Formats: sequence, structure tokens, C-alpha cells
Amino acid sequence: MTISTEKALHCWGYSDTQFIVHDDRTVELTGKRYEICGSRMPGFIPFVESALGVRLDLTDRPTTSVRVAPEPRRNAAFCDALSAEFSPDRYSFDSDQRLSHSHGQATADEIYAVLYEGLPRVVDMVFYCSSERDAERIVALALAHDVCLIPYGGGTNVTGCLQPPEDTRMVVSMDTGQLNRIEWFNPANRQVCAQAGITGRELEEQLRRHGFTAGHEPDSYEFSTLGGWISTNASGMKRNRYGAIENILDSVSVVTPNGKLETLGNFPRQSAGVQIKDMLFGSEGNFGLITKAVLRVRRLPEIKTFQSLVFPDVQRGVAFLFELSNSSSLPASIRLVDNLQFRFGLALKPAAGRRAQVKSLLQKVLLQRIKRINPSKMVVATIGMEGSAIEVRAQEAALAEIAARHQGFFAGGSNGKRGYNLTFAIAYIRDFMTKLHVLGETLETTLPWDKLLQIVERVIEEARTIHREYGLPGKPFVSYRITQLYASGACVYFTYGIYMKGIKNPGAVASKAEDRLRQTIVRNGGAVSNHHGVGKFRSQLLASVLPAMNAGMIRALKSTIDPKNVFGAQNGVFAAQFGHDRELS
Amino acid sequence: MTISTEKALHCWGYSDTQFIVHDDRTVELTGKRYEICGSRMPGFIPFVESALGVRLDLTDRPTTSVRVAPEPRRNAAFCDALSAEFSPDRYSFDSDQRLSHSHGQATADEIYAVLYEGLPRVVDMVFYCSSERDAERIVALALAHDVCLIPYGGGTNVTGCLQPPEDTRMVVSMDTGQLNRIEWFNPANRQVCAQAGITGRELEEQLRRHGFTAGHEPDSYEFSTLGGWISTNASGMKRNRYGAIENILDSVSVVTPNGKLETLGNFPRQSAGVQIKDMLFGSEGNFGLITKAVLRVRRLPEIKTFQSLVFPDVQRGVAFLFELSNSSSLPASIRLVDNLQFRFGLALKPAAGRRAQVKSLLQKVLLQRIKRINPSKMVVATIGMEGSAIEVRAQEAALAEIAARHQGFFAGGSNGKRGYNLTFAIAYIRDFMTKLHVLGETLETTLPWDKLLQIVERVIEEARTIHREYGLPGKPFVSYRITQLYASGACVYFTYGIYMKGIKNPGAVASKAEDRLRQTIVRNGGAVSNHHGVGKFRSQLLASVLPAMNAGMIRALKSTIDPKNVFGAQNGVFAAQFGHDRELS
Repeated sequence: MTISTEKALHCWGYSDTQFIVHDDRTVELTGKRYEICGSRMPGFIPFVESALGVRLDLTDRPTTSVRVAPEPRRNAAFCDALSAEFSPDRYSFDSDQRLSHSHGQATADEIYAVLYEGLPRVVDMVFYCSSERDAERIVALALAHDVCLIPYGGGTNVTGCLQPPEDTRMVVSMDTGQLNRIEWFNPANRQVCAQAGITGRELEEQLRRHGFTAGHEPDSYEFSTLGGWISTNASGMKRNRYGAIENILDSVSVVTPNGKLETLGNFPRQSAGVQIKDMLFGSEGNFGLITKAVLRVRRLPEIKTFQSLVFPDVQRGVAFLFELSNSSSLPASIRLVDNLQFRFGLALKPAAGRRAQVKSLLQKVLLQRIKRINPSKMVVATIGMEGSAIEVRAQEAALAEIAARHQGFFAGGSNGKRGYNLTFAIAYIRDFMTKLHVLGETLETTLPWDKLLQIVERVIEEARTIHREYGLPGKPFVSYRITQLYASGACVYFTYGIYMKGIKNPGAVASKAEDRLRQTIVRNGGAVSNHHGVGKFRSQLLASVLPAMNAGMIRALKSTIDPKNVFGAQNGVFAAQFGHDRELS
Repeated sequence: MTISTEKALHCWGYSDTQFIVHDDRTVELTGKRYEICGSRMPGFIPFVESALGVRLDLTDRPTTSVRVAPEPRRNAAFCDALSAEFSPDRYSFDSDQRLSHSHGQATADEIYAVLYEGLPRVVDMVFYCSSERDAERIVALALAHDVCLIPYGGGTNVTGCLQPPEDTRMVVSMDTGQLNRIEWFNPANRQVCAQAGITGRELEEQLRRHGFTAGHEPDSYEFSTLGGWISTNASGMKRNRYGAIENILDSVSVVTPNGKLETLGNFPRQSAGVQIKDMLFGSEGNFGLITKAVLRVRRLPEIKTFQSLVFPDVQRGVAFLFELSNSSSLPASIRLVDNLQFRFGLALKPAAGRRAQVKSLLQKVLLQRIKRINPSKMVVATIGMEGSAIEVRAQEAALAEIAARHQGFFAGGSNGKRGYNLTFAIAYIRDFMTKLHVLGETLETTLPWDKLLQIVERVIEEARTIHREYGLPGKPFVSYRITQLYASGACVYFTYGIYMKGIKNPGAVASKAEDRLRQTIVRNGGAVSNHHGVGKFRSQLLASVLPAMNAGMIRALKSTIDPKNVFGAQNGVFAAQFGHDRELS
């Protein structure tokens, strides 16, 4: 099989990579991109069936019906001006292009919609930006002719940021895929100036050649872009060492709604009055088109290694993380997966040979007898350590010391490495599951330590309640991992799945169910989002907690720089749903 | 001598603490507060004379002439309303109180002015806020009766934030000294909710009793307040471990200019759209009165220890810091002082006994012979390490490993500890020097690594040029230390002094000279400030580098929440000097 670099048109990731099921009910990930590709996994389907409490019919697939996009609205004056300045290959009215630029990667509201139900609205044109000059011109034309612009990066947004707004104007998606160069790299200052459309993968590949890394690694980093990271205030797996996006940005350039390029910020830290640069974090396309940024980078670590830790139960695992989070020398990445997710990881193992089976049996005996670990309660932390030999040794020593106080013990680097690598393959499971009538979604939040497990329990209860109320088959799949540690709280990342076969309007039901779980989080004291953002789908939820002053000041900023609403994506406080008095229930 | 907790009325620090000179030309710091108090320092005056190239006349002192404040403007309706709601001890028209609330701690423009030349403007009243309710009421009254309010914390500001603006209205200083309680402390979330007027010292003392620390330690932390830290975007010595103020703030409460209390933010991190909370960092009194904040705190470290490192010259010292700044396990604090500052530190040592003299001689021989260190070129890094035993061991091991590559070697913990403790005593030297006709000031900035030493050299050259142009006696004192490390740059902190005896308008000359040094920094690519801020004195400098969009958006925010300019301190982009086209030279 040859490796194509082509991205799937609507689904997640590369078009050569997808989960398939064989006649013997084993599952395989096609292609060669990921560690688990090419092996048959006999445990996958049985695990899913057991977790959902249903028997999957592997032959019955929902019928896809990707529709042709409706005729685009064409603002004649804008189109004339555009064709006078740009050659026809720089923009497109093509149906597939317009459809794929009208959604992100949310399951129910976007992927299920585009594949099976039809999108509510479709952009009228896609423009491919290849320079800042392009961006300035297209914004100037949009301003002159009253056209609405939506910035588009890697298309991995999951909050509806890319969903065209209800707007009577012509709506143009500004694709930044060609704005993917590194403009300069300065090792003497450990800075890189990269264009906004560069993906994490492209950025890291180029930095690696110089011996450097930005270390910003969201699960989506193969496809998500620098501009998207800034506008959604993204964070990555290795934040402990490298920081989240707001911790590595020295400056950012943006084409403002009046068509002028502005560069904001200049230093790793300063006290120079209110920093408007920071207003681009979480701006979600409302304030302009981000064209490039200067990031702080670091030398590639001398050592990169993995570890894993087993705890008898989640209470002890969380107590361990809490204590660890008081320290300053954390491993680059540490993620605690709950028992269900741990078992899902096992289900993704290939069919074992005789020798591996014996080894696995021995491990099981060790866990149960010597450590008195209950396999249906134990939880696992997967750990990635980076740094100098001294740093990594100290990280591992600190982990051992603290884990021992919470009945935790090391379970080896291979488990840790596998957990880390699985991250990138797991995203494809959603699309596979959809074909088997299972609608899955992720929900992430920041929770305070003192309510963390209590809120997790409430979410699980609420999922059960929803299941009952809607009369859904089997049981809900709710699993979680704790992926980021802060002194006063942690990021919790839920995976939620419902078997939908025989249910009317599965997309709407799944969307509603998700909303209710998010409301449960926020009502009990969790954040609207840790790193995915607000967009349209969570704007009503944000309205329920955002101080009036906050929304008012964001609107003031917007009306100052964009009185004609050129950047009219309508995300966050600008979403139609925001601030409606309608009860969130 | 009894220890008083009284603060000096105008000068730095406690009233019981000041440098004095004895008839034998030895210098002593009075009181018992600091390590160096009570010993006679014979090297002090000779060092200063040598560094400035002048002979100091210790008997001739400039004549102080603190004036009585002018009659206050009284807005009758406001005063009537105030006296109807508050007892007379809650506010003051007293001259001393009004004078001391009309300046911060900048030398030429504030301290020299208040002591010798007179302040340009004085606030009309001081109001002592003791609750959020007070704050809401006073703001409501100011709004109703068109009065201008200036928040006042510890009075340690050095950028003119506290200088009353040119404003025809009655101007009231809102003193937050009584807003100094801890409202709650939650160890399960490692959070403390403290009122805005609490000083760093008060905060740390109370946290220590619970076994915790906020770790925020600006050099001013005995006197500066939480509210001041937020509004100036402060940073402290132990930022490597504990973060700067923006890294430890979960939420902040503010009485907005319409008299309503708003709480912004809630989590250690979230992606919930544009975070208006962040707009309070660097807001410098323009946006409202900060009343309290929730900070993330940490358990007191198991180990607190000091070290010092000697490098043969500043080039090697900087190369060491650059390499170190790639690491994630830095000591809590590391500061590299230049050769002049190192020698000043030696001059602050008490008169040595015979035994100490021998020891010192042996050290000198060791430095010169074995390590081939030139005492007139060597530089010293003072280091404070905190954390678990594992962490501190790793920090020290990393320091040793990296220092060895740059010909650096450990010079012991006592030097490190002394350097750290001197920080707090050194601030009193300014007031002592002023009495000896030496006007001193500090200038701090963020510099990119690749221009750091070049810009430092330019500043030193410019100081010499100024000295020549103004025909000043002797030579300028310019010393610097590197106090904060970032991946892409570092904070450089200059100490600047000029002998002014016989010079006309010494305050104006010193102020102009400082301006020119700051311009040199900014024109060559340095930041306006790393952590002191902009206020009034640096607003013109800020105007020379701030993008129009940034200033425009700050003004939009202001006019939205404060259309009547109740918080009319006029700092940063609101200063009269900002945006004037007049050339900065």
C-alpha cells in the first residue's frame, strides 16, 4: 500500500487510514502510519459490545448521503473584484471544497450531519490564502463589498467555529493551508517565525532538522494549525515541559478587519500595559485572520523516554496526581486513564502469540497476587519524560517517591509509549464507530481538585439518566482520563458513546445528550472547556457563566476593530445562541 | 532600639531602617530587620567614591523642603454625600497623607521631587477602603458627582502610576491598606482568596502558618500589594518555580467604574473565549479598583537552599544562562550580577577580623591562581533552590553540569544567601545616596538573548555620553544584573547613579538621563519594561513602539466600562504624554 498524504474529505485524518472490520470480527487500522496499523485486533469488537451492552451488527451500516452543496450566493461586485486580482485557481465554488470547509470534527453536529443528514449551511466560496498580501487584499475586498469571512486552518475544530453563521451576506472561507512556511528561525534566541497555516507536524519536522522543538502537541497536531491553536487557546500533551500556546507565543501577526497587517507583542514577558496580543487567544475567528506568529522553541531533549504507573483505584491515582502537581519537575506528559479506558487499550492489542499470552498471564498473576490489584478497578498513568539525563532521572525518582505513598508502582515504559502513540490512532475510531451506529464524542473541562471525582460521577450518572429518558439501547459508554495538572485543578477529558441503531434523529439526540453532560460539568463547577473552546456549540453554556462585563468588553473590542462584522463567523459571545434567556436544560 | 512597623512617610521602607554614616566614614544600616543591620561597613564609601570617580563630602547634605500640600479641591456634593455615609476617620484631607499618596518610589520624579523640589500635583483626599462595599459606594459617589479616583496599594510604584493626573476634578486616592485580609484558604485546591491590599509579606506570613506559599516575591514584596502586582503585571525573584503574577491568578474581583463588583476568571486554565481577566494585568488603575484575587499556592518546599557560581567574565556567564534557560528544572531564583555589582556586594561586608581577612586573602589567591579568575572581570550568579530533596539535587546537578561547560564553578551557599538577602536592604541605599547628592534609579527590561550584551554596552556608552554632554562630575555608575530567564530572552535590571553636587535642577537632569537610557534600550530592541510597568513616566516610550491597534483596543475597552473616566489616573496609553508626536530625544 502506498502512503498518500491526502486528508480524508470529511472524516478524521488521512484518507489511507481507517479502521475496518474483517469477517472474523477482528478489527484492523489500514495504512502504515501508526504503530497499531496492520495488525488484527480480536478484542476490539467484544470490548465495545461489552462496554455498550449491545450486540453490534457488523453488516448493517447507516446510509451516507453527502449532499451536493446548494448554489452559492455570489456577491457580484466582490466576485468581479476578486477575479480582476486573482487567478481562478486561487478560489473555488466547488461543492466538495465548500462542504469540507463548512464543518469541523464535532461528531453529531458536524461529521454525522455532513455524512448522513446534511449541513445546515454551506460557505459560498473557498479562498486559498498564500501570502499576507493575499490576506490583506481579500479582507479589503470583503470590507468594500460587504462579504463575511471565516478563517480556516486544519479543519479540526470541534466547537462549530467553522460552521457558517446565519448571515445573508456571501460567506467566504479563508483557507490558510498554503500559509505553511517557516519565515525565519533564530537559534540564538530560540525563536521561530511560522505562518499560521502550518500544521504541528510540519512545524515539528522542520524544527527537528535544526535540533529544536516547539513541544506543542495537541492530540490533533498532525492536522491542526498554529493559527488555530492561537484562536482556540489550545494546549498540548507536553504542556508541563513546553507550556500551552499562551506560554510560547512571543508575537502574533493578524490582518485586522480593515485589511491592515498588525503585529502584536514582541517579548517572552513584559509589563507594558494591557496586552492586546492576549485577546487573540480564544478569539475564534472573530477578530481577524492570524497570519503568522513567533514562537519560543527549545532544543530537542537529550532523552525522551516513557513510563507507566499502576494504581489500585482512581481515588489513589487522583491523590497521586494532586501531590505530584505541587512539584516543579513534572514529566513532560502524564495522563491517568480510568479503568474502562485502560481496558479499551488492552482491547486494541493485536492477537497475541503463545509467548505473549504467557507473559500477559504472568503479569496478571503479578498484579493480582503480589500487588493485590483488582483489574476491574486499577487505573494507569502513562508518562512521557523529556530533558537532560539529570532532569529525566529526577522526574522518574519523584514519580517513584510520590507514587509509593499512594500504592502506585511502575509498570514499564512500553505501556507508557503505547498509550502515548495510541493517542493519534484513537481519533480514527470515532469514524469507524459511526459506521456501526455508535455516535461518540469527547468532552473536556478543567475541574477543581476538591470536586474532581464528584463531578466525574455526576457526568456518569447524567449519561445513565439520559439513556433511560431517551430509551436508548444498551448502556452509555463514559470513560475519562486526566490529562493536565495545575496547582488548583486538572483537565479531565471524557469519551462518550451511545449506540443509536433504531433511534430516530440520532444526530440530534447525540447533540442534546452531549449538551446535557456539559451542563452537568459547568453547573457543578467545571470549566466550559480546557482547550477546545466555545465556538457555536458551547456559546449558550458560556453565557450561563460569563460575567456581563466580560461579554461587554469583548463586544466593545469587536465593534472597535470590526464595525462592519467582516469577520462574522459568530463564535463565542457573538454566536446566535449566546445570551438567549432560554433555560439551558 | 525598638522595632516599629511604621513605614517611612516618603522614602523607601520602614522608618526605623536607614543607612547612616559615622565619623570614621563607615556606614551602617540601622534597625534589626536585615542581615546586614548593625555592622559598620568600612568599604561602602570608598567603593562609591571609586565607582563614581568623586570624593564625597559627607557633611554637606541637600536641604529637604517637604512642602505643605496645597488646599484640596473639594467637590461639595461629593463631600456631603461622603460624610453622610462614612465616619470622618475613613478619609483624610491631611497634608502628609495627601502628599504621601501622591507619589510612588521613582527617584528623580517622585522621591527627589517630594523631598526637595515639590510635587507637581497632590491628591485632594485619601479614602481608606476597608470593604468591597466601601469600594462600591465610593465609586458610585464618584460617578454621581464627577470625581476622579486613583487606586493606591503599597505606594511602591516606580512609573508614576500614583502621580495625580492633570485633571480639573477633585482627585481621590483610594487606599487599600485595610483591605488586607485572607478571605478564605482552601488547601484541597491549593487556593487562597486574598484582599487586594494585602502585602506580600502579610500574605506569605499567613500562608506559611498553613504550610503554603504563593512564592511571588518581587524585591518590593514587604510593601507592595496583591492589587498592585496585578495592575502592574508584576514578577518576582522566584518566578522559575512559582511563576509571575499572571501564572498564579485563578480569578480577580474588581469594582468597575459603574460601582459594581465583578469577578473575572475561575480556573487555572480554560479555553472559554477571550479572557477579559487578562486585561487587568497592566491596567495600572485605569479600569477599576481590584478588591481581591484567588491565587494558586504551593506547599512550602521541603528544602530551601542557596548556591552561587563564579564565571571568569560576563560573556561566559551569559552563555551559561542561555544554556540553562533551555532546561525545565531551573532553580527558583538565579541572578547573575556584573563585576561592579559583585564588588559593591563585597563593599557592603562588615569590617573583617584578622581571621576573616586571612580567609578572604586565601579565597583571592584561590580565585586568581588556581582558577585563573580576574577579580575585575569575574561575575557571580546567586542562586536560590527550592523543592523536594530530589528536585533540589537535580537543580544543583544541572547547574554544575552546565556551568562546567562555561568555566563556572560553585562558590558556596553563603554567598548565594547573602546576595538574596541583600536584595531587600539595597532598596534603602537609594535614599542614603540621595542625601549624598547621588541620584540613583533602576531600569529594567526584557532583552533578546542575541542582543543582550550589545544593548547593555549601548546603555553604558549612552550613560557616558550623557555625562559628557551635561558636564556632570566624575563618572556615571551603571551596573546590571540578569534576573529572569526565558527561552528567547532575559530580564536585565540596571542600577544607574549620578553624582549631582553643584548641578542645577538635579531632579530634571536625572529624569532626562534615565529617559535617554530607556530610549536606548527600546530603540535597540529591548522591552519598555519587564515588570515595573508604564504609568506616566514611560508612556511616551510605549507610544514609540505600541501598535496602533493595541492602543485603540485598550481605549475601546476603557470607554465601554468607564465613559465618565472615573478611574482617571491616566496611565499607559491614557497618559497625557502618550501618542504625542514629539520626538523622543
